[in-house]
This record gives sequence, structure tokens and C-alpha cells, in this order.
Amino acid sequence: MRAVRLHGYHQDPVVEEVPEPTVSGPLDVVVKIGGAGVCRTDLHIIEGQWDAAMGPALPYTIGHENAGWVHEVGSAVTNVAVGDTVILHPTPTCGLCRACRAGQDMHCSESSFPGLSHDGGMAEYLLTSARACIKLDSSTKPEDVAALADAGITAYHAVRKAVPLLYPGTICVVVGAGGLGHIGVQCLSALTATRIVVVDRNPDALKLAEQLGADETVVADGAHVDAVKDLTGGEGADVVLDFVAEQGAENEGFTMTRPAGSYYVIGYGGELRIPTLDVISTERNIVGNIVGTYNELAELMVLAQAGKVTLHTKTYPLDAAVEALHDLDAGNVRGRAILVP
Amino acid sequence: MRAVRLHGYHQDPVVEEVPEPTVSGPLDVVVKIGGAGVCRTDLHIIEGQWDAAMGPALPYTIGHENAGWVHEVGSAVTNVAVGDTVILHPTPTCGLCRACRAGQDMHCSESSFPGLSHDGGMAEYLLTSARACIKLDSSTKPEDVAALADAGITAYHAVRKAVPLLYPGTICVVVGAGGLGHIGVQCLSALTATRIVVVDRNPDALKLAEQLGADETVVADGAHVDAVKDLTGGEGADVVLDFVAEQGAENEGFTMTRPAGSYYVIGYGGELRIPTLDVISTERNIVGNIVGTYNELAELMVLAQAGKVTLHTKTYPLDAAVEALHDLDAGNVRGRAILVP
Amino acid sequence: MRAVRLHGYHQDPVVEEVPEPTVSGPLDVVVKIGGAGVCRTDLHIIEGQWDAAMGPALPYTIGHENAGWVHEVGSAVTNVAVGDTVILHPTPTCGLCRACRAGQDMHCSESSFPGLSHDGGMAEYLLTSARACIKLDSSTKPEDVAALADAGITAYHAVRKAVPLLYPGTICVVVGAGGLGHIGVQCLSALTATRIVVVDRNPDALKLAEQLGADETVVADGAHVDAVKDLTGGEGADVVLDFVAEQGAENEGFTMTRPAGSYYVIGYGGELRIPTLDVISTERNIVGNIVGTYNELAELMVLAQAGKVTLHTKTYPLDAAVEALHDLDAGNVRGRAILVP
Amino acid sequence: MRAVRLHGYHQDPVVEEVPEPTVSGPLDVVVKIGGAGVCRTDLHIIEGQWDAAMGPALPYTIGHENAGWVHEVGSAVTNVAVGDTVILHPTPTCGLCRACRAGQDMHCSESSFPGLSHDGGMAEYLLTSARACIKLDSSTKPEDVAALADAGITAYHAVRKAVPLLYPGTICVVVGAGGLGHIGVQCLSALTATRIVVVDRNPDALKLAEQLGADETVVADGAHVDAVKDLTGGEGADVVLDFVAEQGAENEGFTMTRPAGSYYVIGYGGELRIPTLDVISTERNIVGNIVGTYNELAELMVLAQAGKVTLHTKTYPLDAAVEALHDLDAGNVRGRAILVP
Repeated sequence: MRAVRLHGYHQDPVVEEVPEPTVSGPLDVVVKIGGAGVCRTDLHIIEGQWDAAMGPALPYTIGHENAGWVHEVGSAVTNVAVGDTVILHPTPTCGLCRACRAGQDMHCSESSFPGLSHDGGMAEYLLTSARACIKLDSSTKPEDVAALADAGITAYHAVRKAVPLLYPGTICVVVGAGGLGHIGVQCLSALTATRIVVVDRNPDALKLAEQLGADETVVADGAHVDAVKDLTGGEGADVVLDFVAEQGAENEGFTMTRPAGSYYVIGYGGELRIPTLDVISTERNIVGNIVGTYNELAELMVLAQAGKVTLHTKTYPLDAAVEALHDLDAGNVRGRAILVP
Repeated sequence: MRAVRLHGYHQDPVVEEVPEPTVSGPLDVVVKIGGAGVCRTDLHIIEGQWDAAMGPALPYTIGHENAGWVHEVGSAVTNVAVGDTVILHPTPTCGLCRACRAGQDMHCSESSFPGLSHDGGMAEYLLTSARACIKLDSSTKPEDVAALADAGITAYHAVRKAVPLLYPGTICVVVGAGGLGHIGVQCLSALTATRIVVVDRNPDALKLAEQLGADETVVADGAHVDAVKDLTGGEGADVVLDFVAEQGAENEGFTMTRPAGSYYVIGYGGELRIPTLDVISTERNIVGNIVGTYNELAELMVLAQAGKVTLHTKTYPLDAAVEALHDLDAGNVRGRAILVP
Repeated sequence: MRAVRLHGYHQDPVVEEVPEPTVSGPLDVVVKIGGAGVCRTDLHIIEGQWDAAMGPALPYTIGHENAGWVHEVGSAVTNVAVGDTVILHPTPTCGLCRACRAGQDMHCSESSFPGLSHDGGMAEYLLTSARACIKLDSSTKPEDVAALADAGITAYHAVRKAVPLLYPGTICVVVGAGGLGHIGVQCLSALTATRIVVVDRNPDALKLAEQLGADETVVADGAHVDAVKDLTGGEGADVVLDFVAEQGAENEGFTMTRPAGSYYVIGYGGELRIPTLDVISTERNIVGNIVGTYNELAELMVLAQAGKVTLHTKTYPLDAAVEALHDLDAGNVRGRAILVP
Repeated sequence: MRAVRLHGYHQDPVVEEVPEPTVSGPLDVVVKIGGAGVCRTDLHIIEGQWDAAMGPALPYTIGHENAGWVHEVGSAVTNVAVGDTVILHPTPTCGLCRACRAGQDMHCSESSFPGLSHDGGMAEYLLTSARACIKLDSSTKPEDVAALADAGITAYHAVRKAVPLLYPGTICVVVGAGGLGHIGVQCLSALTATRIVVVDRNPDALKLAEQLGADETVVADGAHVDAVKDLTGGEGADVVLDFVAEQGAENEGFTMTRPAGSYYVIGYGGELRIPTLDVISTERNIVGNIVGTYNELAELMVLAQAGKVTLHTKTYPLDAAVEALHDLDAGNVRGRAILVP
């Protein structure tokens, strides 16, 4: 089959032929890929940022955001059958550790992360586990929902954690209205009545955000921290969801919170530099966020099916993977780029 | 009356005569001080660290940790009467803002902080508000409990916020077993069944911590981060309560947390420097903490009255305030120094 | 001034002349009434249901749902001034007890309930406290928002408590789409993405509910418990909000919940009869609800101002109070009846 | 093997020979029983109370509270191995439904309940699932801990849910200091600083409760509701944990709560009869409780290993099962009766 393979850091991956995966364990599932999202994390992988944490053996197939159809199942799989349309939670889990038994899939002590730790889903087929599969209505087109598998679940997870803080009268700032952010805005709109302020460098992204539920938008032009302060009566926001968190956005994001406010880190790449006095004197919080739980992905699919979250995507054939990665890097993708094998 | 007055930053305060405060507003209360705690924050005040945030007009009376007896009350005061023994919440509040109406006293939009923003309680008398007064049993000696008014409430507040994270089988690291930390250990012991690991430079402080409920102690000798990792099966702690948060302890503290763990900043003076990748890849949290709520101080008094929290104090006459400050700075105080006017 | 006075249980109240109230305490506020809601509780008061709990001295002025303009203030009032448009939290509170200090206004140990325990607001003027006043935009017409002061806050409070249970994919049944229920449906729609099923005897009430956000409606015609089971895949609802809770609705409401579900009692008048085996075998909850907190009323005003909660009201002159009560009793009021003095 | 079999309701079970269970599915585990607890639910089963809910085919083996040693494992079992000492969560679960994926084992949509729905563990061997097994230190004697598998987890689960309500200064009433209650008292003592008041008919049970952490005890002699009111300043308890909930205790239990208080139903057999007015006027809650989660059982084992929860048991040989059941029914068991095959 064709697959998008990384042979070395700081160089473009290569689309090439590799053997198809097959089922061996009783809970294994092979999925025929219908859509594979292209994520900023793929750029970070290519830059080597994830090498220390994940240590994949090169070359390997990238891609961690997938939907498709069940192609083959292990002997003990009961929740899906061959032919089912499925979206895949990004991290197959053991089901037996403390975190799994608490529903905290993303903290499974035995979890793997296809596309980061080993072969992922920018390919025709992907080997995953029954525990990663969420069955969808057969009418669903995988390419239409694939971006929910990672961008979606991550944005939804952060928003859902913030819901108790976002009662009517509060203000939530969303930094970055790209692949994750444009989903985050819709989740905020579906789950809260907070006032949504979106910050982005790109005026087109802000236009999209407005259509999706933003109450106010701010161009990130250097004066945006002050602009946010002005919009919040000089106080700052109750919650800042930072989908960028690099190139200085991370410290600006913390600054935009109000006393007792919370700064949610979702993007990455930068370094926080914050005096502990600033953390304690107004009792603010910095909250880490990674992909969400299996149930959260299922909840997000309910929102998607109800039309409350819609994806803005641009599709590419699998063989155009490198072009899609370059477009993303150049800021030329509104919403999410999706490879269709 | 005699009072401990700061005339300039980076110099010792002076014990001198000033006029006694009197009641003017309907909710005003004047308290005759029975005990005034000496806090590391007083050292930070003298260093000028709080000038930007609080901007007190010099000279002024420091001291923000007080208990005593009600001396005079305004016309609308109903919760205490002249002669009552009281402990004082450190921040008199307006009672009408959103934060007050939510019980979040420390986030009152109109709050003042006697001893930081204006005249405090290292003096014979202190002007405060009915809303700051908690009535105690008349047999209570103010000097025995004064340290609960700030050190106590701050430690208790942080512990109480962490309780939901500290179910049986978890590990909580306490960094710093001094004025606040030695109370924090007792609060953890009273409110949770977590395994308590205490880290401090001073072996005497660790001995005290063991008597108060620490399950393990670690000397902060440079190898302590590794020692904590070893004690936690290589994983790190579920919660780290950092009562130091300066001189590098702050970044060590974050490092000691496990995936999905939480780092509570309580001390201050240092600067956090943390890559956003480290915050998101394992979804960790940094939680700010300041003095707690009025109700939390009341709860802590219940623990104290039940003998579940006991203070280790060293008393000084009011005129020896500078000596007490110097002793604290030199690390020569086990538990808390208390001035008795 | 004119006031609606109850002289005896089981008889119509009388509209008659009484002296105007005046300010005496420092936090007292006299409000000129612009709108006074007529509530099913007023019918229950007339039936004597609240006599044991509240024990008002007859005759007294009923009415516990008010908005208007500040007419006179006590010496220590700082949050409102004469002329301000205000909506009134139904229970003036002491501000000093544990419940008040926790923001739980409805559990104030010293609270009074004008209109239930003593003179209320079906009158030209009402004596209340600064702590009950929420300042509104001067363009707001009190008669347009008065129903939020009790019907609104009660519905909002119950919904807000249920929000954590109502993630996407859940089902919430609303029993009763009258004065409270029609607000509850809008609050659910604003704060959650749950599927909303509304049950009522009256087809017109169901039509209104559909316009306000109900996803499904069920006529309470005797087959409604089965109809709800069918709509929920035979399982029952995650949450049932029962705005009726009398005449058998209370036991039907509990029956409509699914395993691990929660039954919220908001209406009253009936008697629950439930085997403890049914409570434990599927671990279900029965949750009491009374008027909400001051902050919740403020939050609701934000929703109202944003147009997310709109009231359906029918106005009557104050002198037509008895007619309004009769209309309510006869089921002839869609939404809420409002007296305008 | 020998097993305790129920052939008909309202008659004693019979100890007789049956075939040993064997592994068939990949996650199956056969456990050699080391201890099987005797529970009031076994009496209720014999009375037919669970027939409608569970519908077991008679005859079948009762017993739902077990610990022992792994005897045989299916092909996909990775968390335990033959020879391991284990305690068993009472309900083997599917691991794939919404509830399982949220860690809510007791709400698994595919769960079975050995001993209630089919063959249980009053026998030499029991067939269960890998998902039910918690590995223990090899030095643990199963008969010493078996009672934690159901009595323990149920008491712990209720206490853990109540922890957020039981801050210092609160009062928790425990009704019934038998098999579950005597564990509940210890869990309260380990996890909270609440004041513990224990109510029981039996003075010996109260003596045991005092040794285990009760602050006050009240003989259930008819005047106990008033006695509890007196002990709580006339207000009632913040939380009542009712381990009886039959023969009138259920309505007394609700009555013992204070305004805004919560009544936890754990025992069963009676019928609640409560006016909805009493539920809403003071906003009280009725909280159902069933066996807890897998993780909660693991947490409880931590408390047991730390000596914070100790069991009071009386052992019987398996062949004396009927005698043990009769002793329990007659109130002649302090703590828990355990069958040792």
C-alpha cells in the first residue's frame, strides 16, 4: 500500500510502498483509511520535537488523525465489525491500568500513539485496536470527520474542562483560529454561554471564527494583548485557550487572564517564563491539555451529527501529502487539510 | 500605641509610637492584638517585592497574621462583640462583589490587605472589618493561634483544593516544612490518606515533619529531585505543594510531578521556565494559591480546636520584631515566630 | 399604597390600602415595584401549604418575584442608588453566616422570604436589603424581567446544577412547560447540548416549548412515561427536571430516569413513594432545588440581556391580582402572569 | 467442588457438589476461593427481593464477595497470572460501553453480577473476568480481605462520594454499624475530619464503632432521631449514610439531615415516603449508592494495607454456610461473616 513515511528529521517525508498491516492480537483492528488529517504536530514531528518523548524507529508512517472503514478484526472484537464506518481515538489503550479504569485514556500507562510512536494513518490501511474505534452512521464520509479524531478531540477536551469556569458573564479568549481553534470556537458556542473573543494573525481566520460563533475578534498585530484587556474592562479573560503556545503567544496568553483566571495550554513549541509571584498573587492557573478521552470523542461526534460542529477542510490526495504539509506550514490552510487515499 | 513600621525598602522596620486606630464605618472593628505572626512575606515586603502590586504609602505598619480581642465595633456589627476573642481573616472584603457573593474572599474586587496595602497588625491595635472576624472560644490564647490567620489559611486552602486529587494510593510532595509547610503536612494528614513526602534543606524541619505526619522525608541536598522520583517509582508525585517556589525550587517542583500531575505554587520569589511541550505532552497543571476563604479559616479553627493541627511557634515581644525578622531570614525559626504586644 | 393582602387561608387575597414601607437599617432598600410575578407558590400559600414552614402573621402582602426602581436606601448601601433599575433576589440574606460566606444565599441561616414569611412585593413598594438588589441597565422595563426574580432563578439554578450531567449525547426531560419550565428549556438550550424532551398536559405549552428549544415534546396524556422510555431507547433520561412534582408527576418523574440518572424536584405538592431498592439498585439520585444564588440571578440577567432567555408574560394591573391568580389556577396563563402597579 | 446453592426462594440454600468452572473466553479467569463474605443481600436474595431485577435461573450458587488465588486464565489475560492472590470486584464488566469507558464499572451496560445473576463465589472456584481482578501482595490472606470486595467497596464508594460535603465542622451520621457500617466509619475517619455520629440498635456494635473512630454513638431506641437533632444543635447532619434503609430507618434517615443536607441510601428494603415540599423547601438530596468502581476497590486495598481499615470478621467453613446466614439474620455477627472453603 502507499504510505507517507518519515526517513529523517528536518526533511520532507516520502510517499512510498509498504506492506499492508494485518491483525495478530485478539483486539486488533485494521482500518481502511478514508481520511487522514494533517496536523501542526506533523510539522513538529518532522522538526524532531517529539523524538525524545516518543522515540519512533525511522523510517515510519506519520498520521494520527483518522477515520475510515473496518477492514479486519481480531477474534475478541465485539464493538465493531468488518465494513463499519469508524473514527479512531488517536491512542489505543490497554483498558486495565488505573488511568484506563478511570476513563482517562490519554494517560494510559501502556498507551501507544500511532503516527508518533510507530506507524500511523497517512496510508491506505492502519493497524489499531478495538478500544480506539467509534462506530459511525454508515452514511458518514470519513474524510468529512477525520479532523475530529485529533484536532477535534483536543479542542473539545480543553473546552469541556473549561465549561465549569465559563458561566454567563465570563469571557473566554481563543488564541489561534486554525485547525483546532475553529473547532474550539464551535464547542464553546455549543456548550457555554460565555462571550468568545478570538485572536489570530490572519484576518480570514477571524472571519471564519465570526461565522462559527465568535462574539469579538482581535487581529494579533502586536497590540492584541492590550486590545483584549480593553475588551475585558481592563481585567483580562476568565479563561484563555491557547491553540498556539509558541513564538511568544504562551506568555501573552497567561498575561491575558484575569485574577483567578486560567490559562489553557493546547498548542506548544514555546517556553513559559512566569514569576511565581504572578502565579500566586492573583491565584491563576496554567492548565495542560492533550487529546481527550474516548467518551469525549464520542460526544464530539454527537455535536458533529447535530450540525453543531462543522469542519472546514481542504482535501488532498494521499500522494500530495508533502504539498499539504507545506501549505499548512505556510499558513495557507483555512481549517484542516485532509489526505484522502 | 507601639507599632512595627516600615520607613523604606531594603531596611529594617522600626518599632515606634503611633496613634491608636478607631472605628468610623458601621462594619469597622478594632481588635486589640494578642499575637502577630512573622511571615516570609514580611521579608519580601521589606525587599520591595510587593510594592508594585500593593503600593502602600510609607511609612506604614506591617503584619498580616493576627488574633486578639475585639476592642471597639461599628454600629452595624452583629457577629462579634467587644471582648470576644477573634482570629482575623487577612483580607477584609466588601461582601457585595461577584467574588464575595461566591465565597471567594481572596478575590474580592474591593479587598484591602492590612499589612501589605496599609497599616497591619504588628501593633497593639488593628482596624479591620466585621467580615474578617471569626469568633473563638474565650479560652483560646490569641498568640497560640495567630499563625493560622495567614500561614495556616494559606496552607489549608492549597491542601483543600488538592483533596480531590489525593485519594488513597497517591503521593503528595511537600516542598518546605517551615511556617506554612508544617501546617500543610498536618492538613494533608487530617483530610486525606495520601502518602506524604516532605522535602526540606533543614534536617530539624524534617524531624518535625515526621512527627506531624510525613510518611517520608528527603533532605534537599541537590539529589532530592532524583530521590523523589525513586520514592515514586520513577513516575513523580500526583501533587507537589511548593511552599518555597524560589531559588530554583519552582522548576524542580514542576519536574517532580507525574504525568497528569499538579504543581501547586504557594511560595514565591522565583521564575518558572517551562517549555509548553512539557505542559501539554503529559497534561500537567500549575495551580496558583493565595490565602483562602473566610470559611476555610473557620474550618481550620475546627481542626485546631480538635488538636488535628498544632502550631510550632516561638514568641517574641513586639519590641523584638526586628530580631524575629532576622531569625526568620537566617532560617533559625522552627514553625512560626509570633510577636506578642 | 395598594397591596395584595392575604387575610386567611383558603380564601382570595384582598387588594387594599396599607402604609408605605420605609428604611430603618443601614442596608435597607425600598424599591418602587415595576413588576410583580404571580407564581404557583402564591396558590400554595393561599392553600396554607407554607404556613408551617414560614408562619407569617396574617394579614400580610404576598408576592416574591419583583423588579422595579430604587426608591430609598439606608446609610451603608453602596451597590445601588435611588433611581436605579433593579431586579430583586427573593431572599435578603445576612451576609455573615457560613452559607452566605459560601455564596449559598438560599441557605442563609438568617434569611427572610418577603412574600412568604412577611410582607412581599405585590404592592407599590417593597422593603428589601442591599444584598438582594441587582442593578440593571436603565433601559430595562421591570415588568419584562420580574419573572426572572423567582421563576427564572429557580429554573436557572436547577439547570446549572445539572449542567455537568448533560454532556452531548444525554437526554434531559423537562416536566411542565409553564412559568418555570419555559425558562428552564431556554437555560438548557443556552448552557448545554443535551437533547431536550418536554412533557406537558397542554398542547399550547408544548408548542411554545418547541419554539424555545425543545427537541421533542410529549403530551402528558397517561401514556407519557412510556413515550419517554421509547424516546430514550427504553433506558430513561439522564436527568429529569420536574417543575410539577405533584398529583403523581413526582413518582412518574423518578421512573423516567435511567440507571445512574438524577431526578430534580423543583415543583412540589405531591409525595414521593419510592422503594429504597429502586434507589440503590441502579444508583439514582433525587435532587432538591430551591431558588438559586445571587450570582445565579446575575448570570441569568446576562442571558436575558443577550436574548438567550426571553419571557412569555401576560400583564395585569395590580388591582386585578385575584383574576391573575384565578387564571393561573385554571391553567390559562402561558408563561408567567405579571402584576404592574 | 462444593458450592452453596439456592434451589428456591424462602428456603435455606444447600451445600452440594457441582462441576468446577473452566475458562473459555480470552479474558476469563477462574479463581480458587480463599474467602467468601456473607452479606445481608444474600438474605434478601433468599427472600426473593432480587428476582425481578436479576432473574437468575435456579438453582444457582450465591456469594458475591470474594478473594482467593488465580487458578486458570484465558489467552488474553495480562494483568494477573496463575497463583496470584486477588480480590474480585463484584461485577465483571465489558470494558467497552460508555460507563466502562468513564470508569463507572457499576453502570456497565453489559455487566453481570456473579452471585446475583448467575453462579457466584460461595464455592471452591469462581469463574470471573480479568477486569474484575485486583492483584494483592502474596502475603495477604484472602479470608482477611474478602469482605472488602462488596461490603468494603460499597461503604467506601458512598463515603468517597460524600467527601466533598464533609469538610471540618460538618457532622456525618452513620446509621447501622454492621458489616458495611463498621467499614464506613473507618473510611470516614481516614478520608475526612468530619464529626462521626453512629446510630445502631446494638450497644456492642456501637462499642466497636467507637474503637474504629466514631466521635459519638446513639442507641437506636426510638428516641434516636431526637438524640441526633440534639447532637447537631437542632439542625440535623450534613450527611446521613444509611446502611439500613428498611423498617422505617429510611424515613428517619432523611429526617436527620439538615437544610441542604444529603441522605445517602446504601441499605435497602424499605420505602421512602417524602413530601416533595420537604425535598425542595430546604433543598435536600437523596443519593443512591451501589458497589463502587474498580479503582475504588484498589484504593480501599491501599487503606487496608496501611492498616487504616481493618475488618472485624467471624469465619465459618463453607459447609456451615447456612449457619452463617442464620447468625447474620439473627443479628449475631459483629462485623462480617466469612466462609472459608
